[in-house]
Amino acid sequence: MYGEAVGRLITELKRLPGIGQRTAERLAFHLVQAPREEGLALAAAIRDVKENVRPCRRCFNVTEQDPCRICADPARDHGLLCVVERPQDVLALEKVGGFRGLYHVLLGAVSLLEGVGPDDLTLRPLLDRVRQGGVRELILATNPTFDGDATALHLRAALEPLGIKVTRLARGLPSGSSLELASKANLAEALEGRQAY
Amino acid sequence: MYGEAVGRLITELKRLPGIGQRTAERLAFHLVQAPREEGLALAAAIRDVKENVRPCRRCFNVTEQDPCRICADPARDHGLLCVVERPQDVLALEKVGGFRGLYHVLLGAVSLLEGVGPDDLTLRPLLDRVRQGGVRELILATNPTFDGDATALHLRAALEPLGIKVTRLARGLPSGSSLELASKANLAEALEGRQAY
Repeated sequence: MYGEAVGRLITELKRLPGIGQRTAERLAFHLVQAPREEGLALAAAIRDVKENVRPCRRCFNVTEQDPCRICADPARDHGLLCVVERPQDVLALEKVGGFRGLYHVLLGAVSLLEGVGPDDLTLRPLLDRVRQGGVRELILATNPTFDGDATALHLRAALEPLGIKVTRLARGLPSGSSLELASKANLAEALEGRQAY
Repeated sequence: MYGEAVGRLITELKRLPGIGQRTAERLAFHLVQAPREEGLALAAAIRDVKENVRPCRRCFNVTEQDPCRICADPARDHGLLCVVERPQDVLALEKVGGFRGLYHVLLGAVSLLEGVGPDDLTLRPLLDRVRQGGVRELILATNPTFDGDATALHLRAALEPLGIKVTRLARGLPSGSSLELASKANLAEALEGRQAY
């Protein structure tokens, strides 16, 4: 119904997360009709990222320089390590702006369902970083999900023998929400984690 | 927070319709972490479309050959023309499968809000096609929206002096819906267009 080139573009777009047949068709037809420069700029940007962006050899965040800007910054607290699942979590935390330590990106989470075990993550390099010394505290900032919690439990067990302080992000009601609409699990966590006031 | 290459990719992805900052970031980080081949294949597919896909000189549908496969097909009814707004509408109608005529793609709709007038569409080439003779009936298949209806009205007025049969797609309740959930406008159309039974 459409030619080979458009069909191939739709196939490639469908590989992207959250892009189904409909959206892929919409994007493909947009690209077909977009100015030549716009399409070529997108193609060049993708190529550039695939050629020049690599994981940082220390924290595994995505970077064009190695070690990355954060790891290379002497003004940051190199004794405080925040462990996250994915590079976009680093971005989310950096946008908040308050954290001045370094990161460690696991590149995933332990998942029974998807068959991801601890050895598929950057757990070993994390333990090596801690063993090299200088790390005072490790903040577990995996996602508040089943897989994220399983990963955090696994990390805590693996880190225990190394004797450093391990914390995790607070659980509770999100600001601006209401008790009425909170899930039972969320309310239970808020109760369990109640703080002195 | 991310390097220049990732930043540029996010900027380019945000030009796509329906892709905001968040989705662009998600897609960019996916592409960063995807296998090299996957990223390069997408970049190549985009380049290929920009280099090889053109509007058909007769119907303005997107095509790699000119005239397009549909216009070049002698088995189709060249006396029946279905006028649509965009190439993806041709795709939608071809998927249904029952229509054996040709198309004419307007490449947009008249829109006061977006400042699109009839001269920005492929209206003049449509009138030329009809004037060349051989067209028996013209089906207006613009979208059932404010702009689509405005475009259909404009087309009807422009086609009237040429004295050919002009029809438009039926309006009414979509199969599988319910009266209870139908909009007032949709119900009014269903009433107004009621058919003998």
